[in-house]
Amino acid sequence: MTGSQLAADLIGVAVFAASGGSAAVGKRLDLFGVAFVGFAAALGGGIVRDVVIGSVPPLAFADWRYALTAVAASVAVFWLHPQLYRVRRTVLVLDAAGLGLFTVTGTLKALDAHVPAVGACLIGMLTAIGGGLARDLLTGEIPVVLQREIYAIVALGGAVTVTVLVRFGAANLPTLALAAVVMTGVRLLALYRRWSAPVAVPPPAP
Amino acid sequence: MTGSQLAADLIGVAVFAASGGSAAVGKRLDLFGVAFVGFAAALGGGIVRDVVIGSVPPLAFADWRYALTAVAASVAVFWLHPQLYRVRRTVLVLDAAGLGLFTVTGTLKALDAHVPAVGACLIGMLTAIGGGLARDLLTGEIPVVLQREIYAIVALGGAVTVTVLVRFGAANLPTLALAAVVMTGVRLLALYRRWSAPVAVPPPAP
Amino acid sequence: MTGSQLAADLIGVAVFAASGGSAAVGKRLDLFGVAFVGFAAALGGGIVRDVVIGSVPPLAFADWRYALTAVAASVAVFWLHPQLYRVRRTVLVLDAAGLGLFTVTGTLKALDAHVPAVGACLIGMLTAIGGGLARDLLTGEIPVVLQREIYAIVALGGAVTVTVLVRFGAANLPTLALAAVVMTGVRLLALYRRWSAPVAVPPPAP
Repeated sequence: MTGSQLAADLIGVAVFAASGGSAAVGKRLDLFGVAFVGFAAALGGGIVRDVVIGSVPPLAFADWRYALTAVAASVAVFWLHPQLYRVRRTVLVLDAAGLGLFTVTGTLKALDAHVPAVGACLIGMLTAIGGGLARDLLTGEIPVVLQREIYAIVALGGAVTVTVLVRFGAANLPTLALAAVVMTGVRLLALYRRWSAPVAVPPPAP
Repeated sequence: MTGSQLAADLIGVAVFAASGGSAAVGKRLDLFGVAFVGFAAALGGGIVRDVVIGSVPPLAFADWRYALTAVAASVAVFWLHPQLYRVRRTVLVLDAAGLGLFTVTGTLKALDAHVPAVGACLIGMLTAIGGGLARDLLTGEIPVVLQREIYAIVALGGAVTVTVLVRFGAANLPTLALAAVVMTGVRLLALYRRWSAPVAVPPPAP
Repeated sequence: MTGSQLAADLIGVAVFAASGGSAAVGKRLDLFGVAFVGFAAALGGGIVRDVVIGSVPPLAFADWRYALTAVAASVAVFWLHPQLYRVRRTVLVLDAAGLGLFTVTGTLKALDAHVPAVGACLIGMLTAIGGGLARDLLTGEIPVVLQREIYAIVALGGAVTVTVLVRFGAANLPTLALAAVVMTGVRLLALYRRWSAPVAVPPPAP
């Protein structure tokens, strides 16, 4: 892994840890709880990815820089959360960047482990949304990613794109970076325009 | 795997996906949430089974027909759920069939992976009830399988039966199919007669 | 594994199963639900540990004595829970002992599997707190270990101690037993003195 890839990966970890830490602060969890939920939000998706492709121990346990980054970001949120509110737009932008990045790296890692295309797309998407699922389950919420907004579908579209690029031998740093940037942009556009996925028509009242 | 086995397996996947999709529609999740909960309900038990026996990537990611079936069934529920209510008896019968089938295949797969007998029974049961657990946790409910009705105990009894059949060299397509049919029948009888497992006596009011 | 180690391990399993069974009885789960939550509370942490270090099938499925002990302890709670209330201090002491024991064995097992030091500490802590997390998620609660009291931090401190002992070649039965005893003592002292971890300052009312 190059230095720039590692740096980008750790930025994604820090951003997702901050989102988990914020949710935990809002639920009045203690300092340990905030660090734990931050760790799960940042690294839960990657742990699931590594377990299902048989890459054990998962990167979250094999490379101390991941755990340290996640815990440091969560603890920072614990102390700084009132200020965080003022930079919430920045956090949303970083979260969208994390979404793009984790989808690309998760899909690539699954394809490298010889997972077939459809499975690799699902694993890439799970890498990106798994942390948010863990964060919401640990704080007693129905996962927000299942409820509204265009989020997971961006990850799925990105994972399909990465898989197609790899199949056609066109996966290289510029094309993969472009895929991550486009995903980030679509996510931000969906936020800005308040796009939502459809909800089923409710059944008639009994 | 023979064609008839695969067909039976995919019917189980479709039925459990429909149960997950229905629960997600009831919670007003969006289209993606419905597909995701359907996927987890159909394939969550099998993913856990494959991970604990070291068969990675799990079948849910290795064979695209499983994911496609789960997603197609969930999305169908999203559009058809008012009609689904009228066929709810059919769904319960299919769910009972899925219970029998997943227990048999899960227990066999664990025994094939050289898991000892007691562990294989537990894994067979988890294959059958794991999806329902995932469905309920994702939709913010205490798992119904832990609360009432004769469901998991049917799976456990079936898993023990399959293990005994294998130990005595009597496991073949007719005996295994019979085990699945008996489990389906017991489950339906329990539903029809409203059999329940006992609940502990509440402690005296403080 | 020596006989005394196995006995100590099974005592930990029984105690955590009793804590899970008590929580399930309190939620009015049926007999199966009580056994299942007890199993998850006793063996969930160890299953996660074994999966992330690639030791499959996990001990919970590979050695029938673990599952049997967990289920027997849960079922005993189902029948005896009013009496259990009178011995709740004993249960808290045993739970503290389980915390110390599971941290030591979990950390050692991760180091044996060549997990780097930071990852081994995290896995040792997860072994000790994972069962409690599973118990609370299955019964619809935000995990208590994330909310208050000095519990997980004791596990983390113990895991660091064990890792340091191993690195300096000082890990042997007396030193490891001492580590477990000190952890148990700190946990009991924290309970007795009602020590709590800090909670973040709430944000100003909107």
